[in-house]
Formats: sequence, structure tokens, C-alpha cells
Amino acid sequence: MPKTLTENTLLKKIERAFPSARMNPLRLGIGDDAALFKPKPGHELVLTCDWFLEGSHFLRDRHPPDSVGWKCLARAASDIAAMGGEPKCFLLSLALPASASGNWLKGFLKGLKRAAKHLRCQLAGGDTTRRDEILINVSVIGEVPNNRAVLRSGARQGDVVYVSGQLGQAGLGLRLLRSGGTRSVERAKAMQRHLYPEPRMALGRWLAIKRIATSMIDISDGLSTDLGRLCEASQVGALLESDGFPAVEISGRIRPKIGDPLELALHGGDDYELLFTARPGKLPLLPWHFKGLRVSPIGRITSGTNIVWHDAKTHVSKILRQGGWDPFRR
Amino acid sequence: MPKTLTENTLLKKIERAFPSARMNPLRLGIGDDAALFKPKPGHELVLTCDWFLEGSHFLRDRHPPDSVGWKCLARAASDIAAMGGEPKCFLLSLALPASASGNWLKGFLKGLKRAAKHLRCQLAGGDTTRRDEILINVSVIGEVPNNRAVLRSGARQGDVVYVSGQLGQAGLGLRLLRSGGTRSVERAKAMQRHLYPEPRMALGRWLAIKRIATSMIDISDGLSTDLGRLCEASQVGALLESDGFPAVEISGRIRPKIGDPLELALHGGDDYELLFTARPGKLPLLPWHFKGLRVSPIGRITSGTNIVWHDAKTHVSKILRQGGWDPFRR
Repeated sequence: MPKTLTENTLLKKIERAFPSARMNPLRLGIGDDAALFKPKPGHELVLTCDWFLEGSHFLRDRHPPDSVGWKCLARAASDIAAMGGEPKCFLLSLALPASASGNWLKGFLKGLKRAAKHLRCQLAGGDTTRRDEILINVSVIGEVPNNRAVLRSGARQGDVVYVSGQLGQAGLGLRLLRSGGTRSVERAKAMQRHLYPEPRMALGRWLAIKRIATSMIDISDGLSTDLGRLCEASQVGALLESDGFPAVEISGRIRPKIGDPLELALHGGDDYELLFTARPGKLPLLPWHFKGLRVSPIGRITSGTNIVWHDAKTHVSKILRQGGWDPFRR
Repeated sequence: MPKTLTENTLLKKIERAFPSARMNPLRLGIGDDAALFKPKPGHELVLTCDWFLEGSHFLRDRHPPDSVGWKCLARAASDIAAMGGEPKCFLLSLALPASASGNWLKGFLKGLKRAAKHLRCQLAGGDTTRRDEILINVSVIGEVPNNRAVLRSGARQGDVVYVSGQLGQAGLGLRLLRSGGTRSVERAKAMQRHLYPEPRMALGRWLAIKRIATSMIDISDGLSTDLGRLCEASQVGALLESDGFPAVEISGRIRPKIGDPLELALHGGDDYELLFTARPGKLPLLPWHFKGLRVSPIGRITSGTNIVWHDAKTHVSKILRQGGWDPFRR
């Protein structure tokens, strides 16, 4: 870092990376005390924020900086998807050591910019400071048409439980990243899902606009934990069926090193797939694939408070423990 | 921290402290993937975020936890005041070590709640995680009537430069806090300004609604730095007059320990007073006191790019260096 680097020059670096930061609906972007945003009539705002901290959520020596940039925005946008909203703009809070203000910052801004473009979510402003470790916080402001937002609390007994994608891929990617090893297509695919997760914006929005989902949450901390949150908010239980459950596939070659795919699918975090419920009558409306994304029924909402896993092969049912990611249980 | 503390139970502690978190215009507060907020027709949103980090912005052993709670919200709301907006709701990102989840958290939430009530700014949601040091990030969402927001960039040659309050009080409070010492009224007053700053919401809003201010910024990093930012955004310079300059008063008793009051007033940070400009014709509209708050003309906007300080006693003019707070220059 050159000796003359100040907060103002760092802000200019960020501003240069996001030159179009004053386009509609953002009337005023970075460079003032606050940003100005013109909300769309007939819409509610969807507000969320997410930590992304070195050591807790990423490792500086393992995660490429452009992945950190992509992921810090993508995972916050995933919360907007889980409400059925569209991301519009975001605030970036960035604390950096001097050693990260060169190449690391360049890579970070590249990934962040790519995510912002992909998600059509503009940088509105933020805050920067110096710190020994890299600290990131992202707030996303989204929009959803009035009374169309899908909450966690709307699941009712008899609803079918659905999940998008294949669960456990990001967890597999993280284990592969930690363990190292040779390159392969399987490895690359799982790493991609861990490093550059894709929030399910189009599916979330469609489920909300068409009033198909009765409740929804994104799987950030693992299915068992996030389904537990949905059930608690809705004051219901759930029965999951092993038959057809969309768990990650792991080849025999790397399986001994990685462990049980079902364990990863049930408790692995970072998938950012959508978990939602719908009345059984909506089944015909729900495609098995939505724009190339698999959508699988995985069980039913029950009147209890437990989440029960039913193994179709052994015919054994057991209560599913909440074994997903919890920063306070590490 | 009891062994059973999880992210969910921490969230519940926060939720309990903010029971009214679902009132209008907040349709959905903490406890879902994101919050829902209904914007007021005819208004723009004002968006800002601020770091508040242990070791950088506060010291756990020197700053009472309720001051940390108050200040993290007050300083972010001050950015909304500087645009002429009203704060409406905020997102709280909190990273805590286990050792701070008891009494520290309790005090913190007490101060935060007091600030939220005082500023009429509701907790909308947030994110929590575990960390060795206390990390706080606050995003505030405010509103301002369409086209009434006051930017940094509107100052024009000939405008009068004004500032609210008395500058350097918070800086004095910080020095007193660091140095320790005996109790006194002077000490208590300065400490209060450092620990529980009061964002100038009513003044900011009045200046915006009445279209009096041509440009505005809040003084968070020191007058010299923040006036520099305003001038840069407006592509102008400024001439400040020492005569009547509202610097903090320091009694002879503690002065040897503290240093020059003018130095504190020009470069001390954390005052959260409003610095603004207005056309000379607006002078009759501007009271010397606004609801008990002193408002002082301190100089003029010039066509140059420098900020010049003119000493009325010595008749010497000199260029004012930007000597305020910059985290990258520590």
C-alpha cells in the first residue's frame, strides 16, 4: 500500500470499479453521506444484511479474492430470493489490512462487480476502514410487489415440502477445498458451487408472483437447520422421505475422503438453494425443472413440531437433529 | 454463555429487547430471511451503513456497553440527517465472543434500544455470528421527500458556510476518557458528547424541507477532513474565519493535559454536527439557535480548491490541512 493511501483514495478505487453506480433507480450512489434510492410504486422493500468475515466465512489463503467478492453479495441476495424479491442495490462495508489493498482488493472488486452485474444489483454506498483481518458486511435492498412476499411462517399441515437443486454440493466443495487433492471435473463442479454460489432469484420470484409457495427459506446453514427454522416460524413439523431425495452424488474414488453424501446434503451449509412449501393442489403447476434447475418434492408438513426422516429402504423413521452450521456451536 | 447458546437463542435475546419490531412501516421485522418495509409515496430512500469495531471505534474496557449500543446507531443516523432525511429502520450485524453475550450484550441492547426509540428508527433485522472481538455494522434506511435531499455537491462560490453546535467537544471527551482523572461537570459534559452523540435530525430535515442548505455533510471525521470532502464534491474552496468560531471551551485547569481547543475543533472527530452551506440571501432565515442548538456562520465558499483559515487576531491566513480522522493514516 502506498504511504499516501487514505480512506478517500480507497473509496475512489471502489468507485472506479463501479462506474455506473448512479443509474436508475439509484439516484445517488457512493460519494455522499448516504445513497438515494427511488422505490417502485406498488412494491415493498426487502432488507437484509450478511457478515462475511475472514477466518469465519472464508480463508484468505484458500478462497480466491474474486470468489469472496462474488459470494459476499450472492449469499445476501439469496435472502432476497427467499422472500420472492428482486435485489436492487447494496451497501458494502469493507475493513482491510494494508496488505490486502493491492491485488487482493482488485480481485475482490472483480468478483463483486461480476455478481452485481449478474444479479442486477447496484453498489449504492458503504463504509471502509483499516483492520488486521478482512471484514465484510453486505446489506441488500430489494423489492417485491405488495403482499407477494413469501414468509417462513406460512407452512400448513399437509403442504408439500420442496427443495431446488442438489443439496450438499457446496459442502462437498468446501471439504475438497480443505483437503486439497488432484483436479477433476467432479472436484471443479463442487468447488464452483462452494466458491460462486448462484442464488435462485428467478425461481423465488416466480413462486412469489404466482402465489405458489406458502412458505420459503434459503438453505444457507444446512437443510436440517433451515427447515427447523421454517417449521418453528410456521409452528409445524415435517416428514421427509429418503426416496428421490436430491443429495449430492459423490464418486467412489473420493468418497472415502469425503464421507456420507446424505450427511452433507442434510447438514452441509452454503447451498443457497430454496426450500419452500406449497399446497398439494399446486403440484401440477410445479415443474420438475424450472429453467434448468431441478425442483424436488422431499416430504410433507405435519402437525407436530419434529422433523422426521423416513428411510424408504429400511423403513426406519427417526427425528432429524438440527446439525447444520451454527457459529455458536463450532 | 450457557453451553446451549445458539444463533437462534441469541436472535431471541435481541428480539425480546425489541418487541415492537413489526409496527408500521415495518411489515415484517427480525425472524425471517429479510425484513419488509413499506416506503412512503412521494419519498426517496436514504441508505447508509457504518462500521463500529472494537479496538478501532471503541474500547471494551473504556466505553460502557450502552454507549456502544447508542453510538453505533446514532452515528449511522447522522448520515441520514446530513441528507435531510428521517431514519425509519435499521439492520444490525453483530459479531460477539462468548464472553460478551451476557452483561455486555444486555447493556449494549439497552443503549441501542434507547437510541432506536429516541430516533424513531426500528430494528428491522440483521445478522449475528461468533467472533473473538466485538464487531458491529449498522445499516440505516431513511426517507426524504422527493428531490429534497441535500447533497455534498451543491456548494457554490459565495455561499456562507455554517456549522451546528460547538466543535471539539467529542474529541475532548475522548481525550478525557483516555487520560482518566477526577470527575467534574466539564468532564461529564464532554464525555457525554463522546459517548452519547446526538445526531442533528431536526436541523437537517428543516434545512432540506425549507430548501435552505445548498450542500451538507455531517462532521464525523473532523471539520478539516469533512469540509474537504464537501468542497471536493462541490469543486470549490472555502475561507474560514476565526472570529466567532464555535470551538469547544476548555478550562485552564485541564488545558495543559488536553492541548489546544482550536486543534480539537478543527481536526477532532465524532462531533456529528452538521456542516452546511446556504446562499447569502438565506441569512435572515437562519436562526442563531435552532431548537436550542447553536448555528454559526464560519466562513464562505470560494472559487479555489483550498480551504483557508484566516486568523482574525494575527491577520494571518494559512491553508488548512486535512488533519481529521482517517483509519488509513493512524
